[in-house]
Amino acid sequence: MAALSVQMCTPSVRGVSLKSSIYGSKLNNAVKIQGAAVTRKSRIVRMGLTENGPTVAVVGVTGAVGQEFLAVLNQRNFPYSNLKLLASKRSAGKHITFEGREYEVEELTKDSFRGIDIALFSAGGSISKEYGPSAAESGSIVVDNSSAFRMDEGVPLIVPEVNADAMAHIKLGNKKGAIIANPNCSTIICLVAATPLHRHSKVKRMVVSTYQAASGAGAAAMAELEQQTREVLSGQEPTCNIFSRQYAFNLFSHNSCVSENGYNEEEMKLVKETRKIWNDPNVLVTATCVRVPVMRAHAESINFQFEKEIDEETAREILSKAEGVVVVDDRAGNNFPTPLEVSNKDDVAVGRIRRDISQSGNFGLDIFICGDQIRKGAALNAVQIAEKLF
Amino acid sequence: MAALSVQMCTPSVRGVSLKSSIYGSKLNNAVKIQGAAVTRKSRIVRMGLTENGPTVAVVGVTGAVGQEFLAVLNQRNFPYSNLKLLASKRSAGKHITFEGREYEVEELTKDSFRGIDIALFSAGGSISKEYGPSAAESGSIVVDNSSAFRMDEGVPLIVPEVNADAMAHIKLGNKKGAIIANPNCSTIICLVAATPLHRHSKVKRMVVSTYQAASGAGAAAMAELEQQTREVLSGQEPTCNIFSRQYAFNLFSHNSCVSENGYNEEEMKLVKETRKIWNDPNVLVTATCVRVPVMRAHAESINFQFEKEIDEETAREILSKAEGVVVVDDRAGNNFPTPLEVSNKDDVAVGRIRRDISQSGNFGLDIFICGDQIRKGAALNAVQIAEKLF
Repeated sequence: MAALSVQMCTPSVRGVSLKSSIYGSKLNNAVKIQGAAVTRKSRIVRMGLTENGPTVAVVGVTGAVGQEFLAVLNQRNFPYSNLKLLASKRSAGKHITFEGREYEVEELTKDSFRGIDIALFSAGGSISKEYGPSAAESGSIVVDNSSAFRMDEGVPLIVPEVNADAMAHIKLGNKKGAIIANPNCSTIICLVAATPLHRHSKVKRMVVSTYQAASGAGAAAMAELEQQTREVLSGQEPTCNIFSRQYAFNLFSHNSCVSENGYNEEEMKLVKETRKIWNDPNVLVTATCVRVPVMRAHAESINFQFEKEIDEETAREILSKAEGVVVVDDRAGNNFPTPLEVSNKDDVAVGRIRRDISQSGNFGLDIFICGDQIRKGAALNAVQIAEKLF
Repeated sequence: MAALSVQMCTPSVRGVSLKSSIYGSKLNNAVKIQGAAVTRKSRIVRMGLTENGPTVAVVGVTGAVGQEFLAVLNQRNFPYSNLKLLASKRSAGKHITFEGREYEVEELTKDSFRGIDIALFSAGGSISKEYGPSAAESGSIVVDNSSAFRMDEGVPLIVPEVNADAMAHIKLGNKKGAIIANPNCSTIICLVAATPLHRHSKVKRMVVSTYQAASGAGAAAMAELEQQTREVLSGQEPTCNIFSRQYAFNLFSHNSCVSENGYNEEEMKLVKETRKIWNDPNVLVTATCVRVPVMRAHAESINFQFEKEIDEETAREILSKAEGVVVVDDRAGNNFPTPLEVSNKDDVAVGRIRRDISQSGNFGLDIFICGDQIRKGAALNAVQIAEKLF
C-alpha cells in the first residue's frame, strides 16, 4: 500500500525548478495545497469538510485529472461532508492524504455510489459508460469528464461561464440522480474566449488550429515527452510507447482516430460540442488539431466570421470583462499568451486580438488563446459545474 | 584561423543520433556532402567545378543558410567556374573545404563582386541593402534571401515552382546585373502547396496558422533551444539571450515586431508576398504566426476558400503530381506530415487534405503542411532561382 500525498501527477519530478520550467508554475501544486490547508485551518473556519456539505466521490482519483480534482476542491474550499476516493482494483488500497486526513482508495464497483450526492468521474469513457448510469440511478449527480455522454440528448454539456442555464433543472437535495458532461478540453478553452464575442456579434464561422499539450493524452504521455527529450539530448533513440512517433522537438496531427470525412475525433468534438453548448446547430466550425511538445496547456489560433460587426477595441473590452478570461495583449512588448504562463492557472489567456484584414469591415477577428488543459480543460470546469448544483 | 568543413550549422552536436533526432535526417549533411563529392568524382564527370560555369559568390557563408547554400550547390551539382566565399570581417580568414578544395573566407566589401556572375546573399537585410545594389551594378545577378528588396517594384519575388516566368527576362551571359528576391520561408512553404490548388480553383481567401521552428531565427536560436531544454531538464533556469522568454516546452507568438494593424511582420509577409507572387492584389490572406520548440522545419495549418469548387480527391491528385510536393495523407495509419520527417528534405509535405465542412459544397479545403525552413524555405529556393538563370 503506497501512501500518496495530494500533488500534481508530474512524472520524474526532481525539484521545483524542473516542475516550474516544464509544467508552468513557480509554486507547484503540492506545495500550494499543503501550505494552504495548514494555513487556513489555523486561521479560518474551513468550508471544506462540513456537516452540511454533500457527499462527494472522485472516480479515477489516481490519474492526472483525478489528482487535479482534489487540488481544485481544496483550493476552492468545496464543501463536503464525506469524501470517497475511487479507482481501479490496481490502485485500491493506496492511501491519499487530503486536507489533513488520510483516505484509502477504494475499488470502483456498482455499489460505490450508495449515499453519494456528487460523483466526479475522470477514468475514461468505458468506465463512465459502465458506472455512470448506475451512479445516477442510485441518486448521484455525475459530472463526467469523458466523452461518453457528451452528445446524448438530455445530458447537459456545460461550460459554467457559457451555458450554466442548461443545467438549471439539476440541483442537489432532491436525491434525483443525473449525468452532466464536461466538454472536451479544446472546446472548453475555445468557448470561454469565444462566447463573450459570440454574445455580442454572433459567430457565423470559426476556423480553429490547435497547439495541444501532452497532458491531454494523460500523465504517461507527459512522462514520455520528458523521457524522449532526455533520450534525444543524450543521443539515444526516443522511447515511443504512448505515441507511435517521436514527440520531442517535433509535432504531429492529433493522435485521435480520423473519421470518414477526414477530420479526427478531436476536431469533430470542437465542431459538435460547440453547436450543443451554444444551442446553435447552424454555427460553422472547422478545426485542425495538432500535438506540440508542451506539457499541460493548450494554445489555439482562432479566426472568426461574425454576423454583426465588432471592432477590435470593443472585442478587447468585452474580453477584459469576461468571466474566466484574462487578456494578455501587449503589442509593443510582444507579450501574448503562452502555454507555460497559463499552466496551473484558472483563466484562459487571450491575446493577438486584431481585426481580420482578409474580411471587409469589422466582421472578422483573429485571436490566440492559451488555457491549462488539466485545470480549466478538465478538473476545474467539472468542479465549477458541481458548484452550480447548490 | 579555424578550418570549417561544409556541414549543417548544428549547435553542440555530439553524434549522428542526436542530430537525427533533433534535426531530422539520419544522414547528416556533413557525411552526405563529403561522401557524395568523393563518390561522384571517382565515377562521373562532375558538373560542379567546370570551366564554362558562372562565377559564384556566397555572402554570409558562415551562417546557417550560408552553410546550406554550399550543401545544396553540391547536392544539385550546380556548375561554377569559380567560387568566392564572403562573410563579415569577424569570419574572414576562416578556411572552408568544399568539394575537395579549400577556400579562404574573404571579407565582404563593395569590390567583392567584380567578375561575379551570381551572388547568393544571406547575411541579413542591412547587409543586403548595403551591398546588393552595388553587386547588381557591377553586373552580378543577386539572389537575395533577406526581406530587403522583396516588395520593391522591378525586383522579382520568386518561388520557381510558382512564378519562374516573372524572372524570365533575367539571364546569365549578358553581364547585366539584377536583384531577385527569395520570399520569406513561411510564404515559400505555403505557396508550394497552395499554388497547384490555386491554379485549379483560384484561392479567394486563406486562413493560415503557423508552427515555426527555431531555425528561422538563425543558428544561435537553434542552439538556445537545445541549451534551454538541457537546462530545464536539469532543474536550472533557462538561458534567454535570443528570445526574451522560455522556449523549451513552450511556444509563443512569432518574435517579429507587431505593426499597427496588430499583425506581426511575419504574418504581413505571408499576406503581401502571396499577392505579389500570385500577381493577384485581391487574394485575401490572414495569418497567425507562432514559434514552436522544433529545430528546423515549419508546419502550417491552411484553410482555403476557393472561387471554383474542388473536391478532396481532385485536390489530392493535383497535389500528388505537383512539383516540389509530396503527399503524406494516411488517414487509417494516422500518418501525416511532421517537421522532423521533412527536415533536410527538399519537398514540402502535404497532408490532412479534407473538404472543409464549414463551407458549402466543395468550395473549401483544410490542409496541414511541413517544409524544411533552412532548405526549401531559404537555401534550396535561392539555388533553384539561380538554376533558372541558365
